[in-house]
Amino acid sequence: MFSNTTIDKNTPIPLYYQLKQIILDDIKNGHLTPGDMIPAELELTKMFNLSRTTVRQAIIELVNEGHLYRIKGKGTFIAKPKIEQDFMTKIESFKEQMFRKGYTPSTKVLEKRILNATGDIAKNLVISEGDLTLKLKRLRYADSDPIVIVDTYLSANYCNHVYDYNLADVSLYDILSMKSETKIVRIQRTVEASVAGKYESDLLCIPEGFPIQIFHSIGYNTNNIPMEYSIAKYRGDMSKFKVTITL
Amino acid sequence: MFSNTTIDKNTPIPLYYQLKQIILDDIKNGHLTPGDMIPAELELTKMFNLSRTTVRQAIIELVNEGHLYRIKGKGTFIAKPKIEQDFMTKIESFKEQMFRKGYTPSTKVLEKRILNATGDIAKNLVISEGDLTLKLKRLRYADSDPIVIVDTYLSANYCNHVYDYNLADVSLYDILSMKSETKIVRIQRTVEASVAGKYESDLLCIPEGFPIQIFHSIGYNTNNIPMEYSIAKYRGDMSKFKVTITL
Repeated sequence: MFSNTTIDKNTPIPLYYQLKQIILDDIKNGHLTPGDMIPAELELTKMFNLSRTTVRQAIIELVNEGHLYRIKGKGTFIAKPKIEQDFMTKIESFKEQMFRKGYTPSTKVLEKRILNATGDIAKNLVISEGDLTLKLKRLRYADSDPIVIVDTYLSANYCNHVYDYNLADVSLYDILSMKSETKIVRIQRTVEASVAGKYESDLLCIPEGFPIQIFHSIGYNTNNIPMEYSIAKYRGDMSKFKVTITL
Repeated sequence: MFSNTTIDKNTPIPLYYQLKQIILDDIKNGHLTPGDMIPAELELTKMFNLSRTTVRQAIIELVNEGHLYRIKGKGTFIAKPKIEQDFMTKIESFKEQMFRKGYTPSTKVLEKRILNATGDIAKNLVISEGDLTLKLKRLRYADSDPIVIVDTYLSANYCNHVYDYNLADVSLYDILSMKSETKIVRIQRTVEASVAGKYESDLLCIPEGFPIQIFHSIGYNTNNIPMEYSIAKYRGDMSKFKVTITL
């Protein structure tokens, strides 16, 4: 089952942590693959000569970090590897990014309506409170897994034409690129770690308390006018985000 | 106390979510400031005419997201705003970044030793298993708050000189910059959302299950040889990370 079952009880490295590393190493080197079932807790205690508490802690953390998942009454399994997302380096549509990574993207439009800007929305779009904005709420899938909820607010002054499209089929950035005035050429984005509340848990099909990434983005046109303000909530267990930094 | 106490029971927006937004808006507009105590659950139910369950859910999520914190037997308080970190855009030392943001940085060196590279460490440093590496484990503070644990592995072949310095006083990047051969000019970095296990909870002084950001980084010299492989675990409630993306 495992390529290594030796726990070293004479190092200062905690025992549960050593067990975690053994399992993680076997996931990384391909010895364990997505969908593989790992032995039950009791078996693991015998296999590694560890206490039940120690085994439990290792497994809980691997589940919380998204490396393992549990199916009630069945067992604990190796999760799919995270998708390495370019969301923090490239201006492109979700659709394009998913295709490039080898996934089939799809989108459910949960909300599309005109509303009056308030608070943060007005501030980030640099419009007045009460000014019209187009709000979109989209749930986006990679293959059959929901991986991100995106709330988008568009300045209605500029982006009125977006309302006419079916956002389940056409990507927002493609629509915005049709008019040079609304084409996004720069994005300011922040990322924060958070955990799923009830709302995110229901939509993303993850338990409450599971890690999620929350992105706040403002997209600007060539004249530095904000067109788009969005809040994206990514499932933490399915995605990691890469950047390259140079001097 | 709150600049708005109106919950709209006729919209499809969940009630707990509306309460969350009211509190978040008051934090953003400065009406509520760090350290302010918010009313107890029972008071909130009266103030907003909401059920206890609804109030509880809003508060739990705000605590989990790091906007509020609880002190046992005292109450629930507004947390400090997150530090907007440049960790995903700039090659510079933690010390430099914290000073620039107006915080006093400090570092505890928890581990400094030579070890034989295994698995991921050898792979990421592009050395053979068994080759010597210098391992550093540092806990880093902004003012008096621990905000990140960093495990760093350096190729001993190149970075032997680092061992002689006291990393509590001198920054690693300053030491590496002393030799043109070891100067880091490019970093490949990924970020993943996770939650604190017992280990991170103890060091970062946050409850288990709290959001954290895990960064994996490889730092290269001008010849594209990896010098440094590191794993940084940031408290999610104290930091957000920004990037700028351009077409």
